Parts: sequence; structure tokens; C-alpha cells
Amino acid sequence: MLGKCLDNVRKNVPLVHNITNYVTVNDVANVLLACGGSPIMSDEPDDVEDITAICGGLNINIGTLNKNSIEGMFLAGKKANELNHMVLLDPVGAGASKLRTDTAVKLMDEINFTVIRGNISEIKTLALGSGTTKGVDADVADAVSEDNLDDAVRFVKEFAKESGSVVAVTGAIDLVSDGEKCYVIRNGRPEMGKITGTGCQLSGMMTAFLVANPDNILDAAAAAVCTMGLAGEIGWSNMTETDGNSTFRNRIIDAIFNMDGEKLNDGAKFEVR
Amino acid sequence: MLGKCLDNVRKNVPLVHNITNYVTVNDVANVLLACGGSPIMSDEPDDVEDITAICGGLNINIGTLNKNSIEGMFLAGKKANELNHMVLLDPVGAGASKLRTDTAVKLMDEINFTVIRGNISEIKTLALGSGTTKGVDADVADAVSEDNLDDAVRFVKEFAKESGSVVAVTGAIDLVSDGEKCYVIRNGRPEMGKITGTGCQLSGMMTAFLVANPDNILDAAAAAVCTMGLAGEIGWSNMTETDGNSTFRNRIIDAIFNMDGEKLNDGAKFEVR
Amino acid sequence: MLGKCLDNVRKNVPLVHNITNYVTVNDVANVLLACGGSPIMSDEPDDVEDITAICGGLNINIGTLNKNSIEGMFLAGKKANELNHMVLLDPVGAGASKLRTDTAVKLMDEINFTVIRGNISEIKTLALGSGTTKGVDADVADAVSEDNLDDAVRFVKEFAKESGSVVAVTGAIDLVSDGEKCYVIRNGRPEMGKITGTGCQLSGMMTAFLVANPDNILDAAAAAVCTMGLAGEIGWSNMTETDGNSTFRNRIIDAIFNMDGEKLNDGAKFEVR
Repeated sequence: MLGKCLDNVRKNVPLVHNITNYVTVNDVANVLLACGGSPIMSDEPDDVEDITAICGGLNINIGTLNKNSIEGMFLAGKKANELNHMVLLDPVGAGASKLRTDTAVKLMDEINFTVIRGNISEIKTLALGSGTTKGVDADVADAVSEDNLDDAVRFVKEFAKESGSVVAVTGAIDLVSDGEKCYVIRNGRPEMGKITGTGCQLSGMMTAFLVANPDNILDAAAAAVCTMGLAGEIGWSNMTETDGNSTFRNRIIDAIFNMDGEKLNDGAKFEVR
Repeated sequence: MLGKCLDNVRKNVPLVHNITNYVTVNDVANVLLACGGSPIMSDEPDDVEDITAICGGLNINIGTLNKNSIEGMFLAGKKANELNHMVLLDPVGAGASKLRTDTAVKLMDEINFTVIRGNISEIKTLALGSGTTKGVDADVADAVSEDNLDDAVRFVKEFAKESGSVVAVTGAIDLVSDGEKCYVIRNGRPEMGKITGTGCQLSGMMTAFLVANPDNILDAAAAAVCTMGLAGEIGWSNMTETDGNSTFRNRIIDAIFNMDGEKLNDGAKFEVR
Repeated sequence: MLGKCLDNVRKNVPLVHNITNYVTVNDVANVLLACGGSPIMSDEPDDVEDITAICGGLNINIGTLNKNSIEGMFLAGKKANELNHMVLLDPVGAGASKLRTDTAVKLMDEINFTVIRGNISEIKTLALGSGTTKGVDADVADAVSEDNLDDAVRFVKEFAKESGSVVAVTGAIDLVSDGEKCYVIRNGRPEMGKITGTGCQLSGMMTAFLVANPDNILDAAAAAVCTMGLAGEIGWSNMTETDGNSTFRNRIIDAIFNMDGEKLNDGAKFEVR
């Protein structure tokens, strides 16, 4: 089932509009190409509506927001909503600054997001106004673990219901819920935290999965999370002794490039609660 | 002859001013270094005239244009023209949005470009106002193939004459013409389309080739196209089974780093029509 | 001693706020992660004060400055000073344009920098108003060599005294001084000049070293320089025949990822004058 979602991306080559940060944008583009999608980047308010109109999905990432790109996010998001496109929010650093928190909250007020994807601290900030985001990384105190898993699943389901979006919380254990069901995913490697932008990459790739699987949003989002995590495992298994985080970054994207539905089905580790 | 153009880049170390998009800018810088040039990036209107004045060439790429950088493009372009520098236009996404099309057309009106380099859909948009750019990729319907090659060569020659620029259309088959002669180039690998920014990289590198070969603009542009395509072939031949598009990106730049005029002459596949 | 500085970074995981250029920002983030730090990027004036407040250090790099980010630099720098954070200035291209020189000089007037790190031409521009910066690279005429080393050490010591900052001049021979002592460092590989942004990467990493070693600023800055240079040597020793500058970039970051205090102590090549 999840494998089918990946195969659909390769079949449909979804065009994804990204308003994303300049730190990880190149990797986002290459991951989108690796999974079978096609990326385009544009954040200028005078440009975004035209660009989003020719795409199937929009990925909004506030990682290096500025006044001009924030304006672009609202214009693109509203246009994408008008056109019934898939729209994803990645609230990078929500909780770390007033501007980031306020922008994410206002985007959620004015735009219907198909999926909201972030780390647990960012998502708690949006849900409760009280996450303790440590820069762009989740606070250890917030982390989803086997010990607090039941509570975390309940929290994510509730926030999904409340927000009307599929919510994807990624970390050591990943949770993806539409308010009814919750995927609990255990793919991935801890060393992925030593690469900048695996979360941003996932958001871009997930948007392509949504566009290519419009009738299975929840599964598509979960499939993207499994793809990224499994690619981390495969990439890590290809590391040599002198390799480090820079090579690991390449090997993850390479693993996505070489993945297909069958491999994904074989390697995906999840349960549905 | 083409090999000489590359050797001249390594000999002269041309300094190239790039106003380019934030998606692929790091690769543009590393490709410029790989071929023997020296990159500098600046898009702030208050900065670009000074910066372009100390360079030999200017590469304008509209891939993630915004109001501020557009102003920078016009100021830098006019200054570069005043100083008789080489100026290249890469009209990324012309045809995909009104802002991109209008900006590219206005740049062509107000600035003399030594070379215009784009995919066939972008170039058709500039020439005919009717390309069907699919995001930042060429539309399949527009693609240059052995079947429509005669027409394509005629079209590129005419547009070169009309625009007064050397025109380089890159794709499966590459065409480079000054209005009289047209290089038809068959280097490259289809997998290069799975890496973001090979076009942007080529534009940066081509600007260095122009600066280092001021008396052979057409040959210099063609040499840059062959260098990129041949690097793609060499890079691909160095791929292992677990490698994907991220590693391929590195291997292409590596291949340029290791190329010299002799290797380029041996590997370049072209005819002149 | 220098090794201890690196171990402290890994122990303390310092959060570093970077206002840096969009050319090399991804590598800066990955190098910070490689050495054990944690990066966050923000340049929007409305965002930078909150972001810098949660960090331990601020890295200001003027490589692709614009009017908006310049405003962000001043706000962030003043806030960081208020909070007694470590603040580093990387005056990329000072001497290459009036805007860059003026911005760097004004930043030095209004903000107390813990460290100023640049190439010799940039530092001469700040000290004497007369460096001959060639784009973003140092002019050969300015280069520190064994022949002019005594003069260069004297110059760096004097500028450190005058500016009240530790001054780090990097090149074939690196000099790091607090006005009293001067580290003369001979790690590194000439091929590092063929990669974009090794200087920017060093500035980001150095900021993390400063935050983690507040009582040994001079040693911390020197340790960061040795780490970068030694990583260049190790990375180069891991190169194969078909590798080039793109792979070298990865191998340097990988080498930092795999370095510890002991390896650094073994490989650091320096004297103190």
C-alpha cells in the first residue's frame, strides 16, 4: 500500500511549488527529483500565484522567512486553496521566535493545510502555544519515546482533528495521523539529526506524495515518512569508516533515487493505532 | 579548438559575477571553481555595480527572482554593458509566470547579452511568446530531437540573428548558434535531468568560458556545453550501484575539475551546421 | 589544549545563530553539525533578536548582504552584545565593493566582535582601508608567506589590539592573535581554495568553538582553524583519482565529523609567537 504511493509519484511526476528556506533548498530540490517529482522554487509575491497555479502542490517552509517571502506564503497558499491543490506547512522554528510562531499560527488561520509536518516541539507550539523549541531542533523533554507513546498518539490525533489537517510529527518515532488513525513509524537512524534539513527534505517529498495520491492522503504522508526513514537506514548501511554527515546526506538522497514501491514495502516499519 | 577554450579558462582564472537563484548557487560556485574560474555572488542593487566592475563577466539567472534582485539585475547588466563585459542571460522559468517572462523580455530590451542560454521552452517563450514551460523544465512537446532537428537549427539561428546574441538551447541535443553557424552537440546523459541545476551550473561556467575567450564567443559557448555534457558522461561512468542523483551531482563537478583541453577534444561530440 | 576545545564543542552542543550568505549556507550548517554544534539561520530584522537570544553565539557573514539582512545584522549584533554572547564577523568581500567595506566598518563601530575572521585582503581593508580584495579571494600580493611572516604577525597583533577583537587571518599560513600572542598555523591544503566557502564554514564552526570555550577565546579560535585545516589534509588523503572539488568538499566535512580532541592534538601544526 505505501509502496504504491511511491510508485504513483514516479508515474505522475508531480510538480511541487516550494517556498522554502535557503539553507536546505538544494537538497529539497534534489530529493524531489530523487523520488520522481519535479521541484520549482519561488517566494516573490508577484510570482507565486502564477507558479503555484501550474503545480499540483505547495510546500510552505518558514525556515528563513522574511517580510517579502511571508507575503508570498499567504498569496501562494490562498491561491493553492482556491485551486484545491495539496498544501503542506513545515513550521520550522515555531516556538523559537515570536515571528515564526505568529506566522505559522496565522498561516493555519488563513490557509487550509492538507498536512502539517514538524518536530514535536514545533507541533506542540502550534497546538498548545507551549513547545520548547531549541532553535530548529525539538527539545529533548518533548521527544516522543516508547514511554510516552500513548499520550503522544492521543495528542497528535487530537491536534489533527482540531486543525482539520493530517499531522506528521517526526523524530525518533514518527507519528502521522488524520485524527482517526495514527501511523507509528520506526524507520530512520539517529545520525539523520546530524544532517541539516532532513525534515525540510521530507516536507518537499511528502508534498509530491500527496499530489500523486490525492485519494489516500494519510497513507501518502506515512509513505513519505517511511521512505525518508528507510533511505536513512540504507544510506547509513552504505557508509565507510571515513564517511561522515556530508556523505551521509548524499547517500540518503541516493537511496531515495534507487527506491521503488517494493523496496519500500519490504523496509517500512510501522503499526497503525 | 574547443579544448583550447577550456585551457584558456584555467590560464586566465576569470572572475564571474553571478546574480543567480538560491537553489543551485552553491553548485554554480563550485562548478566555476572546478573549471578554473572564480565566482562571486551579489544581487543587492547597492552592491552589484561595484562587484560587476571588478569582474570579467556577469551571469544573470532569474530562477528565484524577487523585486530587489530584479533591480540588481538591471543595474549590473547596464554596468557590465558599459564596461564591455561578457553578459549571459539564463531565463529560468520564462513562460511559467508573467513576472519571469516579463523580466526576461525587459532584460533583453535594455541589456545586450553576449549569450542567452536556456531550455527550448524558455527560448521559445522569448522568441515567440509561446513556449509551454513546465515549471523550470522544458515541455516534452518542445524538445529538440533528431526528427525536428532541421527546424530547430533554423529556429535557433533566426533567434540568434534577431536578438544579436549567441543562443544556446540545451536539452537531449544542444544547439549553439550565432546566427550564421550552429553547433549541434550530442554530449550528456539523460540522468542529468534528475539533478537540480545542471543548467544553472552551465550558465555560470559558460560565462567564464566567454570571459577567457573573448575572440571566440561561439566556440567558447559550445565548449562550455560540451564540457558539461562530457562531465555528465564521465560522472555517470563513475557511478556504482548504490549511487543516485546526489552522488551524480558531485561526480559531474569532479569530472569538470579533472578535465583539460585534451580530454575535452577527445570527448566532445558535435557537428557544425 | 586545542583538542580540549573541540571536545568541549561536542560536550556542550552550542547553538549558533548564523546570518550568512546563501551561497555556502548549507555547508555552514553541516559543518556546525559535524563539529558538534547546532546551527540556526535567520536574517529577517523582525526575527533575529528572538533567535539570537536563544543561542550562545552569532556568526555575521556579509557574503550576500542586502538591505534587509544588513538591518538584521545590526539588530542581532547589538542584542548579542547585550547578552554577552560570542559574536564573530566574517567580512566577505570587504574591499571589493563600497557597500561591503562600509558595512563591515560600521558593524565594527557599533558591535563588539569577539573574533574577526577573514582573508588577508579583507582584514587589510578593515585595518588600513587599502586591501586589494580580488572578488572574495585574497590578492596574491597580500598573501602571508614565510618571507613576510614577521611583518604579517606584527600586523595581525596590532590590528587585534586596535580592534579589541581576536583576529584570525586565514590563507596558506593562518594567523590568530589576541594582540599579545599569535598562533601561526600551517595546517590545510592549497586545494581548499578550489571549494567555495571553506572560509564561511570556518567562521560558523569557530563561533561554536568560542561558545563552548568562553574562558579560552584565543585557543578556541586557533583550535577551529586547526580543525578546518587538518580536516582538509585528512579529506585530501581520502581522495581517489576521479574525485574533484565537489567530493573534496564532502570529505572535509566528513573528516570534521570524525575528528576528536586527540586526533586534533596529533595533527595540529602550529607555533605561538
